[in-house]
Amino acid sequence: MRATLIHAPRDIRVEDVPDPQIRRPGDALVRVVAACVCGSDLWPYRGVTETTEPHRIGHEFVGVVEELGSEVSTLKTGDFVIAPFALSDGTCGHCRNGVHTSCANGAWWGGEDKDGLPIDAGQGEAVRVPMADGTLVATPDLPDESMIAGLLTLSDVMGTGHHAALSAGVSPGSNVVVVGDGAVGQCAIIAAKRLGAERIIAMSRHADRQALARDLGATDVVAERGDDGVARAEELLGGVGADASLECVGTKESMQQALDATRPGGRVGYVGVPAGGSELPIRKLISSNISVGGGVAPVRGYIPDLLADVLSGAIDPGRVFDLELPLEQAPQAYAAMDERRSIKTMLRP
Amino acid sequence: MRATLIHAPRDIRVEDVPDPQIRRPGDALVRVVAACVCGSDLWPYRGVTETTEPHRIGHEFVGVVEELGSEVSTLKTGDFVIAPFALSDGTCGHCRNGVHTSCANGAWWGGEDKDGLPIDAGQGEAVRVPMADGTLVATPDLPDESMIAGLLTLSDVMGTGHHAALSAGVSPGSNVVVVGDGAVGQCAIIAAKRLGAERIIAMSRHADRQALARDLGATDVVAERGDDGVARAEELLGGVGADASLECVGTKESMQQALDATRPGGRVGYVGVPAGGSELPIRKLISSNISVGGGVAPVRGYIPDLLADVLSGAIDPGRVFDLELPLEQAPQAYAAMDERRSIKTMLRP
Repeated sequence: MRATLIHAPRDIRVEDVPDPQIRRPGDALVRVVAACVCGSDLWPYRGVTETTEPHRIGHEFVGVVEELGSEVSTLKTGDFVIAPFALSDGTCGHCRNGVHTSCANGAWWGGEDKDGLPIDAGQGEAVRVPMADGTLVATPDLPDESMIAGLLTLSDVMGTGHHAALSAGVSPGSNVVVVGDGAVGQCAIIAAKRLGAERIIAMSRHADRQALARDLGATDVVAERGDDGVARAEELLGGVGADASLECVGTKESMQQALDATRPGGRVGYVGVPAGGSELPIRKLISSNISVGGGVAPVRGYIPDLLADVLSGAIDPGRVFDLELPLEQAPQAYAAMDERRSIKTMLRP
Repeated sequence: MRATLIHAPRDIRVEDVPDPQIRRPGDALVRVVAACVCGSDLWPYRGVTETTEPHRIGHEFVGVVEELGSEVSTLKTGDFVIAPFALSDGTCGHCRNGVHTSCANGAWWGGEDKDGLPIDAGQGEAVRVPMADGTLVATPDLPDESMIAGLLTLSDVMGTGHHAALSAGVSPGSNVVVVGDGAVGQCAIIAAKRLGAERIIAMSRHADRQALARDLGATDVVAERGDDGVARAEELLGGVGADASLECVGTKESMQQALDATRPGGRVGYVGVPAGGSELPIRKLISSNISVGGGVAPVRGYIPDLLADVLSGAIDPGRVFDLELPLEQAPQAYAAMDERRSIKTMLRP
């Protein structure tokens, strides 16, 4: 079959790889219907994180179950499934606490299981899914083509935006600032609105992303950055900072922006992958009673609730996809994301 | 009148100072019934923070209103009042959000108001209280002598322990680790129990403090520190860390202990005054989804609820006082606290 590998910074190739096969009784074989490129895939693409040898890449996909190991009990052949960006057994103490990303037997797409067996990545034609019962979530029916984009966001960005909002304690009536206008930031806006936020300020400088943010639920847009952006947001909020700031970028500057925009006693929810030396200034946090929380979003636990809202049309996170390419054009997909010509690019095998 | 001043590390003196007088229409004049020494008073006492010139000290007291400025509307002469450790106007946006320690007009005992007018400190015979309506809380009746200790804890330590528990999200059924067996740590145990925690592990090495912790609600005591202490706590909790850890010391080691004792997805509430270079390791927080929150406790807002529970006998935080001395022996009170001969020392003018 065909799958995407990263060989080095800016060297993405779609190549022939062995067809996946059931290797464990808990495995599922999934034919990929749609995959996509994540903002975090751009760190190795840009050379921010090192690529020491060519490896499979991609951790967001949806597909159809083609074959099941003998011990899989919650899925059947032909099911349409959503794969969260982390694998989990669903039964350990951390999974039961809803923190599937800390699963005692957890693993990552493109990595290895505990016994050193390689795990496929998502940007390919098919995937062997270990711990399929714990990892995959099946939709009640085969979805329409029009639902694919929305369902694919449940692999990562919609659940990640939701995690930012939950971690920041967004609740009915909250005043929220969202830092980051990428796919996660846009989904954080959806999540904040879904949780009842009254005021949602999107910090964004790009006209197309500003427009999308407004469509998805932002009540205000602030184009300024740094101190000017904070001052403008505070002005919009009547002179007091935000109850909740959602940090959806992962740089030192974006974290500072989120902290500065938050009122005393407020909360910052962060989900940006920190690739820029983000710090938490403990003295500021203590003097202003700002809480911080978040991290690698345990999206597996969020899928059932969010799935219901996607299927009912209550939320439409699929709108973050503004480019769709065939799998063979994965290199072009990375370039489009890297050059910010695309908010989020879908790959279709 | 007589009041306590710090001149230099380990140089505490009780001296004659001018009698306080009403200076502003919002002032109250309060005769101090009881004051006490705070763990944070030990930082200048020990020379950890600098004392550049002699100044009044003490920020926890209860007393009786002797005189009121013309604009004070919520108090009357003869009221028994509790003074929280920070002054606040009670009307600004931050006070209305319950974050009185970030009051737009806030001030500190022993400091100055916005116009440079000195503010009395608490370890003396009487105190001029600016912003009396916003700052002071009156009890419904004149309390019995037996209630003084419990009421005095509402100035700081009981509200601070409560803040740690709230900041860590303690709720019915929570498994809680409390780091610190001083007065704040003991009050954090009371607060965790009051909020419905199921398991409360006190980390304490001192027999008398272990006994008090058990009396106040600790279900378990762990005497080990560092990795051994974390391992022991985790063992008690069935192999998963605490839902909530309450950091009530303020050193680098105690913060690390609290973080290490917390399960993925759990929360650390910190109220220790950081005098030892505490840090928040962002990568650990992100990978394990541990939230952190807390800071300078806005105890003013907590007093009404906690007061009701003290008066009803539902909680008995006054037990943290194990030594009572006349005001004139303030130097001995500091020495007793510094040498850990006393958990908390009351001073009676």
